[in-house]
Amino acid sequence: MRDVAILGVGMTPFGRLDENDLLDLLSSASLRAMEDAGIGDTLIDAVYVANMGGGILNHQTGIASALVDNLALLPAAADLVENGPASGASAVKNGVLAVASGYYDFVLVVGGEKMRDVTGWRATDFVATLTHPYAEYIYGVSLPGMAGMFAKLYMDKYDIKPEHLAMVAMKNQENGILNPYAHIQMKISMEGMIETPDSIVNNSYVAKPLRLFDCCPVSDGAAAVILCPADRVKDFGKPLIKVAGFGQATDTHTLAERDDPTDLKAVTMACNQAYKRAGITAKDIQVAELHDAFTILEIAESEHAGLFAKGEAKKALEAGETKIKGSLPINPSGGLKARGHPVGATGVAQIVDLTWQLRGEAGPRQVENHDVGLTVNFGGFGNNVVAFVLRRES
Amino acid sequence: MRDVAILGVGMTPFGRLDENDLLDLLSSASLRAMEDAGIGDTLIDAVYVANMGGGILNHQTGIASALVDNLALLPAAADLVENGPASGASAVKNGVLAVASGYYDFVLVVGGEKMRDVTGWRATDFVATLTHPYAEYIYGVSLPGMAGMFAKLYMDKYDIKPEHLAMVAMKNQENGILNPYAHIQMKISMEGMIETPDSIVNNSYVAKPLRLFDCCPVSDGAAAVILCPADRVKDFGKPLIKVAGFGQATDTHTLAERDDPTDLKAVTMACNQAYKRAGITAKDIQVAELHDAFTILEIAESEHAGLFAKGEAKKALEAGETKIKGSLPINPSGGLKARGHPVGATGVAQIVDLTWQLRGEAGPRQVENHDVGLTVNFGGFGNNVVAFVLRRES
Repeated sequence: MRDVAILGVGMTPFGRLDENDLLDLLSSASLRAMEDAGIGDTLIDAVYVANMGGGILNHQTGIASALVDNLALLPAAADLVENGPASGASAVKNGVLAVASGYYDFVLVVGGEKMRDVTGWRATDFVATLTHPYAEYIYGVSLPGMAGMFAKLYMDKYDIKPEHLAMVAMKNQENGILNPYAHIQMKISMEGMIETPDSIVNNSYVAKPLRLFDCCPVSDGAAAVILCPADRVKDFGKPLIKVAGFGQATDTHTLAERDDPTDLKAVTMACNQAYKRAGITAKDIQVAELHDAFTILEIAESEHAGLFAKGEAKKALEAGETKIKGSLPINPSGGLKARGHPVGATGVAQIVDLTWQLRGEAGPRQVENHDVGLTVNFGGFGNNVVAFVLRRES
Repeated sequence: MRDVAILGVGMTPFGRLDENDLLDLLSSASLRAMEDAGIGDTLIDAVYVANMGGGILNHQTGIASALVDNLALLPAAADLVENGPASGASAVKNGVLAVASGYYDFVLVVGGEKMRDVTGWRATDFVATLTHPYAEYIYGVSLPGMAGMFAKLYMDKYDIKPEHLAMVAMKNQENGILNPYAHIQMKISMEGMIETPDSIVNNSYVAKPLRLFDCCPVSDGAAAVILCPADRVKDFGKPLIKVAGFGQATDTHTLAERDDPTDLKAVTMACNQAYKRAGITAKDIQVAELHDAFTILEIAESEHAGLFAKGEAKKALEAGETKIKGSLPINPSGGLKARGHPVGATGVAQIVDLTWQLRGEAGPRQVENHDVGLTVNFGGFGNNVVAFVLRRES
């Protein structure tokens, strides 16, 4: 088992990218990561593409093979990995295993999604292909619907107010303004989001209690990393960002079958595996990129990852602890909420952003303590979660 | 790097399976492999699903997560791997890397496809999503069309007659009759396939010079293997079938960009990588499962894999060398031609069939020399090829 490190990272801006098709986005992010690594096109011997919707949204398959040709990386091995919205972290995991095994030395992992090829209900229907076909999908269950049900239960259980959700949204959109790659560049205020008896706000319900500004946008985009054996990083003159640990765990397909639907078991298990492999505990995490497809998920994941005790994340929010200048910054990139959520790209983008933080290359959104960080990529509605711990060494 | 072995194998019958959905097929093959391994449901720590059309054909994503739940394997890690028609072998490769890395011990790899949910041109259109979207697809290029062009060039170059293609079809359908898992159970004769000036045959052209009986059927089905560290096999009382080597190589997306479109470079490279890792040469191969989606491919792959010199496979066919009782049996299972081609399943099914041969468990289709075998899984039109060498040891 070899130690694996992140040699290079890159991403496209996320957003509505009408000029680019899926292969353009994957290629662009890959070239940026290759340029960052300073690796050229002869050393890469395996490529993983993370993507969920190539078939449904873009009527394309075999995109990994197309990519290696487009990047002039032939005859590198190439596969696509799909794990719903956690496809990105799953692909990175498989790249890590490929390098750890000793079979491959330099591996490109690139996640991307071209979601704006479809409009309106079709994007929601695409994501709903993750739900159980007979127990959920045919009854019209969607991911926002699941998140709404979850939010209601979680907020009741831990006395979380709509204002707490709004604090997550405000924080992440504020961070997004500092991130040139973020889809949503817009400052929002509490007054604009929460109704009072005297106000009308432009923030309609999507799935009660979640409103528009509690949900991530539908984005196009791609993100890429180059993995290699940790002992090869010095040859390239790059900082050593080690994949200290990873974890992956699954849970029931339907929410209804969980003993306690407010318990995101797979988040806890995936994070604990990652901590154990890294030889750390949750207390050692200094910065985290969490999967805030809905604001409630940032709160719930931060608690299930052990960063805060159950019910305590709201206090950290109130105190500003999770802001960029706080004691435990969460989603300094802006998260899915502001950076956007091209589903196949997200898990890779989290690792790209965290790498920039650990290298000290995050510009105006740089956090202060930056040696050990966590990413959580949340598939389905928490039925397949992948976590990474990255650590800066040297 | 740990040695990896195949502990258990299983598959569903292939064919038109109207009673079963994709998850049923994946589950059934998995349970058969788990039963064969004698492993129960507590040891498996990672699952790979190979599938190409879940999105396009079945409007489902996240099927790997659904499977671990359905099989009561929670919280095992689960990912889907897609590499077109070579998805099966790609998923096995990733399972092998997972075990070789030391991170996972017991890994289930299951490939499946539910193709008969769509009918007529939709199945061909689905497979055509592998072609280049602007250089091929929009002009109506399909995989049978590519195979027809390739067949014309290859037959001209090496003086291969329609009778040679028919010999492949007859051999594989004869083998398929001995295989209870095969989709097509029908003996065919040369007279029924090749037109003479005095005859009319019920074997119309699909893509000249390829006729109906030169093409594999559109099938439903699934196949599964359990992988583990080679030194754990004895604990289960199973024969040691080692993954002696694997290879994977890519080629240009479009046929038009290849210097010589009759040169299936990726087949040669993938096989040579596999031979090198296994410490053997092509001469050591005693039995092979090749990707005969079209009869011409069995001939061309056997030559590109080095089993015969270029232009010599037709002589082996004439002499019956590639029949079950011949000196180098090819596709004793019936191949894609008779067993069928549920695309995600095929690469796994090749390994299942070869394992049965190496164990001596292939019943009436058992070959005589059975210690070292080859599989070739052919993605796109040869733009992503995965080969395995399996060896019986002890």
